[in-house]
Amino acid sequence: MEKQIRVGVVGTGAVGGYYGGLLARSGHETHFLLNSDYTHVKKNGLTVSSKDGDFHLATVAAYQQAGDMPLCDAVLLALKTTANHLLPDILPQMIKPDGIVVALQNGLGVEAEIRAVLPQATILGGLCFLCSNKVGPGHIHHLDYGSIRIGEYREDGAAAGITPALEKVASFFSKAGIEVMTTDNLGLARWQKLVWNMAFNGVSVVLNANTAQIMADPAAIDLARDIMTEVIAGARSYDYELDEAFIEVMMSATAEMVDYNPSMKLDFEARRPLEVEAIYERPIMAARKQGVKMPTASVIARQLAFLDRRNRCR
Amino acid sequence: MEKQIRVGVVGTGAVGGYYGGLLARSGHETHFLLNSDYTHVKKNGLTVSSKDGDFHLATVAAYQQAGDMPLCDAVLLALKTTANHLLPDILPQMIKPDGIVVALQNGLGVEAEIRAVLPQATILGGLCFLCSNKVGPGHIHHLDYGSIRIGEYREDGAAAGITPALEKVASFFSKAGIEVMTTDNLGLARWQKLVWNMAFNGVSVVLNANTAQIMADPAAIDLARDIMTEVIAGARSYDYELDEAFIEVMMSATAEMVDYNPSMKLDFEARRPLEVEAIYERPIMAARKQGVKMPTASVIARQLAFLDRRNRCR
Repeated sequence: MEKQIRVGVVGTGAVGGYYGGLLARSGHETHFLLNSDYTHVKKNGLTVSSKDGDFHLATVAAYQQAGDMPLCDAVLLALKTTANHLLPDILPQMIKPDGIVVALQNGLGVEAEIRAVLPQATILGGLCFLCSNKVGPGHIHHLDYGSIRIGEYREDGAAAGITPALEKVASFFSKAGIEVMTTDNLGLARWQKLVWNMAFNGVSVVLNANTAQIMADPAAIDLARDIMTEVIAGARSYDYELDEAFIEVMMSATAEMVDYNPSMKLDFEARRPLEVEAIYERPIMAARKQGVKMPTASVIARQLAFLDRRNRCR
Repeated sequence: MEKQIRVGVVGTGAVGGYYGGLLARSGHETHFLLNSDYTHVKKNGLTVSSKDGDFHLATVAAYQQAGDMPLCDAVLLALKTTANHLLPDILPQMIKPDGIVVALQNGLGVEAEIRAVLPQATILGGLCFLCSNKVGPGHIHHLDYGSIRIGEYREDGAAAGITPALEKVASFFSKAGIEVMTTDNLGLARWQKLVWNMAFNGVSVVLNANTAQIMADPAAIDLARDIMTEVIAGARSYDYELDEAFIEVMMSATAEMVDYNPSMKLDFEARRPLEVEAIYERPIMAARKQGVKMPTASVIARQLAFLDRRNRCR
């Protein structure tokens, strides 16, 4: 039997608390780096209320400082991208130099930030299809979905293929009951996810509307569609195979969702910083570099920048 | 001495109440068509609290039905454009067929709506530079400014010159203490006013921000500037002489304003219908006809359409 790899989880919120919790429950050696919830989790453990069955981990290997953690073979990076300025202080202290980082983050450019900190590491990107919220200290509410699409990062953005590191991570995720899909092309997968994220996250914040309210209004649908068209043009400028038929797939899927508040809307309501840079500004910049304009998304990006600043200085 | 012309005022709110009130105060024969405030004004008269001096008109020639009014030589049309569907029922009953209509309305296309109802009338457009609110029934609060730029309408959009009708109206406005500027080119003046209106009205609603808050944020300023650039391109596609230097004039003027809520924001807060069609959709359509896109303004227009619908069906 393969030697079990030691996993560290950075960020124990809606994403890290859920997936890290599943790993720990499956008996995997899992160490959690916490910030605001440290004392609570150290004392009371971690609770996941899930549509697939609730569970509670009474004892959690919890840490407040990355330097106190044992060196991990793999790290699930589940911070919001707005906290990525902390990575140079955190990652090198808790992961073996040639370890594996799985960035469970939205948007573009997060792997490059990790690469800058860990030149030797293997970096995977994981796109979570997950409706989950942190509802209290050490308490995650998993509402729906839960799969992750994982691919290996290459600095040139090209398809990395299905690599051994990818298979290793997919395997221990699967054993923990997490639905994993591997992708040979992380860049494509990231742009694909941006199609929905750029259309619905920002519009939901600016219009203070959930997905059902957006899908019920012709002008709002039209905005979402225009943004999707722009994202697909951006993806294609990097030769990622995505075409406009994908818009209808996303729109039908959204129409079938229950009233859903995208993560950025939840962040906004909780007065947390918005992931405007990773989800909007970087893709817009990346497309512009290839001569593709994203005028609709770019209006949303600037509105979000305004709303985010005001939301946090009140 | 010239025979005094009989004036009718349609819409006795922030605009019609103020200018109509000044005309009546100057001794001009002025008849007011009112809707919700009819009973109050008939009984208590009209009050204008103005930074230039308050005044009260104890007796007002007030009407609830256009058919009850004497036929007027000139009409000040001071309804919101969102009420222009009422014009066919109102105008023909209260104005001589060859009378003068002064449309004190924002946006594009309002003169064409009047022309459709009154084929023989002389139509002027008046652009009000006015900070004024209706603060109660028959009570107008005039905060700042007050001048009107007036020009004569031509169906082909070309410069009509300084016409006799224009001079006549300018003269009796002036005598009432209203600062009037005449323009030989109403089309140019309307686009010029749209530069500010399209930049600040909608953005203030979508971001729930007054002009000072917009001018304090780099992302919001950037949005306003982009919209202004688009409006100027739209104007130029019709050969109106407007150039980008006008943007800086508008931005400096706005920076020097006190915290100001554009009229559309006040309408939104009062749950009145927004003038999205006249101020956004028609100019966007007009520019598109000439092959000029207004992508930024068009995002704002659709956001306003969404917000307006939700605002009024709650």
